[in-house]
Amino acid sequence: MGNARVNNTHGHIGSSLLRGFGDDLPLDVWLKTKMWPMEAKFTAETIEAAASLAILEMLKSGTTTFLEMYHLHLELIANIVDQSGIRSVLTRGMIGLCSPLEQEKKLAEAIELNKVLRSIGEGRITTMLAPHAPYTCPPAFLEMVVQEAKKLSLPIHIHLSETAQEVQNHIDTYGKRPAIHLAELGVFEVPALIAHGVHLDAAELDILSQYEVAVSHNPISNLKLGSGIANIPKMLERNILVAIGTDSAASNNNLDMFQEMRMAALIHKGNQENPTVVSAQDALLMATYNGSKALQLEETGILKIGKEADFIVIDSQKPHLQPNQQVISHLVYSASGSDVIDVYVRGNCIIRNKQCLTLDEEKIIFEANRAFRNILS
Amino acid sequence: MGNARVNNTHGHIGSSLLRGFGDDLPLDVWLKTKMWPMEAKFTAETIEAAASLAILEMLKSGTTTFLEMYHLHLELIANIVDQSGIRSVLTRGMIGLCSPLEQEKKLAEAIELNKVLRSIGEGRITTMLAPHAPYTCPPAFLEMVVQEAKKLSLPIHIHLSETAQEVQNHIDTYGKRPAIHLAELGVFEVPALIAHGVHLDAAELDILSQYEVAVSHNPISNLKLGSGIANIPKMLERNILVAIGTDSAASNNNLDMFQEMRMAALIHKGNQENPTVVSAQDALLMATYNGSKALQLEETGILKIGKEADFIVIDSQKPHLQPNQQVISHLVYSASGSDVIDVYVRGNCIIRNKQCLTLDEEKIIFEANRAFRNILS
Repeated sequence: MGNARVNNTHGHIGSSLLRGFGDDLPLDVWLKTKMWPMEAKFTAETIEAAASLAILEMLKSGTTTFLEMYHLHLELIANIVDQSGIRSVLTRGMIGLCSPLEQEKKLAEAIELNKVLRSIGEGRITTMLAPHAPYTCPPAFLEMVVQEAKKLSLPIHIHLSETAQEVQNHIDTYGKRPAIHLAELGVFEVPALIAHGVHLDAAELDILSQYEVAVSHNPISNLKLGSGIANIPKMLERNILVAIGTDSAASNNNLDMFQEMRMAALIHKGNQENPTVVSAQDALLMATYNGSKALQLEETGILKIGKEADFIVIDSQKPHLQPNQQVISHLVYSASGSDVIDVYVRGNCIIRNKQCLTLDEEKIIFEANRAFRNILS
Repeated sequence: MGNARVNNTHGHIGSSLLRGFGDDLPLDVWLKTKMWPMEAKFTAETIEAAASLAILEMLKSGTTTFLEMYHLHLELIANIVDQSGIRSVLTRGMIGLCSPLEQEKKLAEAIELNKVLRSIGEGRITTMLAPHAPYTCPPAFLEMVVQEAKKLSLPIHIHLSETAQEVQNHIDTYGKRPAIHLAELGVFEVPALIAHGVHLDAAELDILSQYEVAVSHNPISNLKLGSGIANIPKMLERNILVAIGTDSAASNNNLDMFQEMRMAALIHKGNQENPTVVSAQDALLMATYNGSKALQLEETGILKIGKEADFIVIDSQKPHLQPNQQVISHLVYSASGSDVIDVYVRGNCIIRNKQCLTLDEEKIIFEANRAFRNILS
């Protein structure tokens, strides 16, 4: 494949230990009774165990680059990125529902981290500024973030319009829809990548297209949390750059980009009762080349002489990949992450014959279970 | 698990070699330019290669029983069932768009096959009568089938309301919706299993509930062909027995019941913007115990003393199944068929440490590709 890098463009690997801890619940009940009380108990040990587990899982299922939005212990995550050999875009998620002083402190920390994180991992780590969402970041704070993003030439990553309720609340509070509001606040004047984009109207899609905002489509998380189905066919009609992300293992519940890509190719056909929307080729591009562009790693997103070689090898001898002539179709509609046998990042072999050469799998699985038991008790 | 048997309750494995041969096309274009011209070239060699490939794929991904609706070389398929050790419900699909003489011939063949097929596989093969669909079987033919089903105490398997177009055509032709029509024709007076049920109104769902008709939900095929999304939550509210099927590899494009189960648990949450519908437990039951009931194999659908032991073993040490406490959640939301390591049917080990003990995997993959090239040329 010319488009070789597999990019998971949105996630929160710090929360990976909450996989399966509370499914099938209303969103507010899940957050208030499951996620938040557990997250309050997270320590450095939790984050390190969670990030190690997630990076191992991603590498073994063929992901070569991931974007992380998290608010705790990003240096620890960067160290695991360094050790593992994976490529990463690390963003310090900032919730601005606090005093201006605390807002400034968070932003200063993000700016400082920007330098620290990029110094780790021999160039495999880049950063963005990540105000969490329009509903958690007041307008004045967003304007501060935009100012710094411009000054530092950093892209912005932000959640946008994941649920119908948050959009309605935004309209009730500000009298306008969130994407329009973000455009007015200047958020789209720097390169921007929004996550979800489930509830966007035509005027908002026009705005995203006009400002060349990229979208991280997270179909499985959006289904599982009951958020809805993003209108990807309408985005593609407008030439909006659509990439794919898994979101957290707490709402997915795995980090398999093949399953995400397959869902992206399937869900819109059924939802719109039209089998011609989002072709296999579209979905493959979303998971690979579009992701590189969305992560501002376009220069290294193609496998050719002079570019950095990130690529994966698939075991094409599996029964579910026969007859073996329809390669793109099988990659999108038939394969899963477990068909990956080798993974290379920057020319270095990280997974060989399904074994991780850089991380200790047995130890990571042991530590993940220990760390989970520690926050349970 | 108490509900140990994994039942794929609807498919056409005879068509497996058409996997990926024509994706993303309008339904009529796909059928007319891809499926039908290729199917016209099928020989005994094609069916044998296709069925061997599909049974190998199903066993390796943890399916212990499958239902097949096909119209060619069912004895060959039965022989592979026999050899492989899998359990199967074989049905001779009958399209009644032909002369009464030909209709009678097809029905006589199905009745004869009923005896022949059940004599193969040492009791692991059962049968049903399978008129293809309301739109391919005239009312008089359906009445003949019902009469024979009653006489022979055979259940009926039939496609029902897969697309909005076929429902509209049925109303235009007969002045009533298909499920109502089938009930009037007596089809539901014998145990019945319908496939798809994507476009059923409330009165039709009431009829299915009243007659205790089982539904084979095929969410991935329904998405991929743009047929739509069956209203499973409303079926569950009415206590309709819902099982899961993959349909053909030509419209799925694999036969992984874990992926199908996961889709069944995800799709309705997103479609209805409600994360509480179709719980992990619901989806697991659909793929296991409900399938046994739908296939009239209830007596052997549970793992306990005195029952036939069909069960599978999962490799719980995979990174994507950690932390390892939430077993049902992980089976439904995180696992895939490639996590299966051992498969037992009737107490016999068929897959051990991912290797098939009864079929020659290398040969089957070779033959599948050869047979596909033969029909391509």
